Amino acid sequence: MNKAREFDQSVLAELKILLGDRVSTSAAVREHHGKDESYFPYAPPDAVVFARTTEEVRDIVNLCRRHRVPMIPYGVGTSLEGHILAVRGGVCIDLSQMDQVLEVHESDLDAVVQAGVTRKQLNEYIKHTGLFFPVDPGADATLGGMAATRASGTNAVRYGTMRENVLSLKVVLADGRIIQTARRSKKSAAGYDLTRLFVGSEGTLGIITEVTVRLYPVQEAMSAAVCAFESVDGCTNTVIQTIQAGVPVARCDIVCEKTVAAINKFKKTDYRVAPTVFFEFHGSKTSVVEQAETVQAIAKEHGGMDFVWATKPEERTQLWQARHDAYFACLQTRPGSRAVSTDVCVPISRLAECVHETMEDVKDYIAPVPLLGHIGDGNFHLMFLVDPAKPEETELAKAFNKRLVERALRMEGTCTGEHGIGLGKIGSMQMELGDDVIDVMRDIKRLFDPDNLMNPGKVVPLQ
Amino acid sequence: MNKAREFDQSVLAELKILLGDRVSTSAAVREHHGKDESYFPYAPPDAVVFARTTEEVRDIVNLCRRHRVPMIPYGVGTSLEGHILAVRGGVCIDLSQMDQVLEVHESDLDAVVQAGVTRKQLNEYIKHTGLFFPVDPGADATLGGMAATRASGTNAVRYGTMRENVLSLKVVLADGRIIQTARRSKKSAAGYDLTRLFVGSEGTLGIITEVTVRLYPVQEAMSAAVCAFESVDGCTNTVIQTIQAGVPVARCDIVCEKTVAAINKFKKTDYRVAPTVFFEFHGSKTSVVEQAETVQAIAKEHGGMDFVWATKPEERTQLWQARHDAYFACLQTRPGSRAVSTDVCVPISRLAECVHETMEDVKDYIAPVPLLGHIGDGNFHLMFLVDPAKPEETELAKAFNKRLVERALRMEGTCTGEHGIGLGKIGSMQMELGDDVIDVMRDIKRLFDPDNLMNPGKVVPLQ
Repeated sequence: MNKAREFDQSVLAELKILLGDRVSTSAAVREHHGKDESYFPYAPPDAVVFARTTEEVRDIVNLCRRHRVPMIPYGVGTSLEGHILAVRGGVCIDLSQMDQVLEVHESDLDAVVQAGVTRKQLNEYIKHTGLFFPVDPGADATLGGMAATRASGTNAVRYGTMRENVLSLKVVLADGRIIQTARRSKKSAAGYDLTRLFVGSEGTLGIITEVTVRLYPVQEAMSAAVCAFESVDGCTNTVIQTIQAGVPVARCDIVCEKTVAAINKFKKTDYRVAPTVFFEFHGSKTSVVEQAETVQAIAKEHGGMDFVWATKPEERTQLWQARHDAYFACLQTRPGSRAVSTDVCVPISRLAECVHETMEDVKDYIAPVPLLGHIGDGNFHLMFLVDPAKPEETELAKAFNKRLVERALRMEGTCTGEHGIGLGKIGSMQMELGDDVIDVMRDIKRLFDPDNLMNPGKVVPLQ
Repeated sequence: MNKAREFDQSVLAELKILLGDRVSTSAAVREHHGKDESYFPYAPPDAVVFARTTEEVRDIVNLCRRHRVPMIPYGVGTSLEGHILAVRGGVCIDLSQMDQVLEVHESDLDAVVQAGVTRKQLNEYIKHTGLFFPVDPGADATLGGMAATRASGTNAVRYGTMRENVLSLKVVLADGRIIQTARRSKKSAAGYDLTRLFVGSEGTLGIITEVTVRLYPVQEAMSAAVCAFESVDGCTNTVIQTIQAGVPVARCDIVCEKTVAAINKFKKTDYRVAPTVFFEFHGSKTSVVEQAETVQAIAKEHGGMDFVWATKPEERTQLWQARHDAYFACLQTRPGSRAVSTDVCVPISRLAECVHETMEDVKDYIAPVPLLGHIGDGNFHLMFLVDPAKPEETELAKAFNKRLVERALRMEGTCTGEHGIGLGKIGSMQMELGDDVIDVMRDIKRLFDPDNLMNPGKVVPLQ
């Protein structure tokens, strides 16, 4: 109680001196910031502040540290494992007003942005340059949040994840120091890779305020297609052979027939209700034709039906928007539900087996379980739709996920291809990497955040 | 003296119990292990041990820690910044007998190797699979050493460096724990990126004993070509436009006319003595033709002369061997000399300017200064040939390098694109990243190696 009073009286007053009306303790704002897209119950912060500069973030960090108040960085709240829930109260630092594209270096194929710039905003901003930023997790997340969670998504099979596409970060450390982790050159062998240490650290080691990302030339030809299959096995085997053949496919995502039905209903589309792969090919005109021919031949061998093509930019966008809306479309199939979303990623040689066993297992779940994902990387998601009013459903879904994670680990995979650890996968990560690795991570956490104030309780909780 | 006696008597005896005759204190063996390819004077270790398993490395680490003896991991000694010099004595742990390819997963496009496997050995081993490992720093370095120094080289412009191509590492920590940093899946968002933390740590945080690397399908067509230009500017501008046009060139390296002359003499080749770019194109037959046509057109605009092609595998190998031998060829132009090799890497938009200013500057050096490098990444090397008997020459070369580093930093570049820090670039890294970043690195060093026994004195020296 003393602590709470201290927060109310002095922290809040000091925050207001610092930020004026960019401090809120209204219930609505706090609730909005105490919830992401996951199934976790609300955990609102004590206050929400809206920062506009790195120096403001530093001042907030210094203030919170002095008062021993937890700090949770927040982008747009699209995380899926409770990353931004204020489970120990404290101040939510909303970075969405840090929305300036600071520098675009067309000739160097990179850009420097504030952490609150979203991926769509960046792509809109650079449209005229003939360049684009490829990492696309579906949601229009902020680049700070995407870096913090090592996001990936549909394009990762060709362009990599945030791990490969962040060149440098500006970070406010727990002690208030501001560091720039690297220079802007495409490669460097200068010391420990602090950039990659912060990519995926989920706000637990410091607060990312600026991100330098790689950009890529828009290719001469970009074609997307959907192809329905007789079975999920047909989808996975087609993609496996495509990857093994070295076809530089830009995207290849699976959606199961339940997902297609949900998309059709939600988007008023008329895709054939069958297991389907969404493809995209980038390259010169002839190269795209070559790639497409190769993949069509492979698909045919595995029960693939006709390719339905989208070549104009707006058609491609529409097609991938349908894929991206799958999450919300599936949620609609059980109104009022939330999703327990799984995220395993396995070596591609084990993908068909892993998907197959998993589909068998989930037959017994209380509701249909849609499957979708980035199978070119060996990464797929199941959506267990749960009634938030019935905790036993969430527990049941988690039991299925536990078996799935164990299955993926037996196959040398990971519990999380792209969603991260947050609150939801702490136990899974321990199973995956073992006590010694977790201890090393915990030591790193203690080194960067000795007072346990940076998004506490996530990734490797200290107490 | 007490310490030295302790080493002689008990450490050596214990090492011999552990490893039998795989312990050497002979002057020849110690000298061989106290020198890399750099200009630094010999710094032999007190003893050299030859490990064959991770468990042996662990036992050696435990033994050395108990006796507070420094440990220096050693591959084949091709580093260029004094990385493996035993500047504080201690035990050199030679890993070259850890030369087993443990697993090749053809379908997953990856392999698990012991740290002492060299890149050529791996490529020979997997030849029949139609896959290859692309990272190629020239020297036939071990994969453990390449991971430890975040090596890159000629193929990095397309396939990335060791940063992108290591999936997981087995590491012996200073306290004797053995950790596996990640699973074998292509991507993961599970916690802090320990893999990337050890890639580039140069043996100062732990000893890498196994490396899981990505492999790539050998493309249908692989063609190499050399193209001579009227000027170095012509070379750099051609490559800059090639990259900016999004041509997926697999390799593009520059050698200046002095380097070409040295290669011709050393290899008995007859390349035109002019600034030259070595290209390589990978892809389908039509895509390679397309790429080549685009680049030839760009080259022509910038004073490029005829492309001389090598399409058969043995011709390609020969061509790139000539490029790789440039280092030794240049050394021969001043018999008995050693090279102070520079390694800046700048954003490509600044490359022409950086090379131009640098060529002007080095006109005044006492000997011709060959230029070569991976200009597709913005990374180039100068070789200052110095007489090791004349320390003033080394000092002079270092003064030129200091100006070059300052120039690269002004252009938002790095002091080291690929050679790493070792002993030689500690000051440059401090200039590049600033005190706060170096302090963070030093804290990480202390966390992993509180007794300062893991390759002490390198990257971020503790005392």
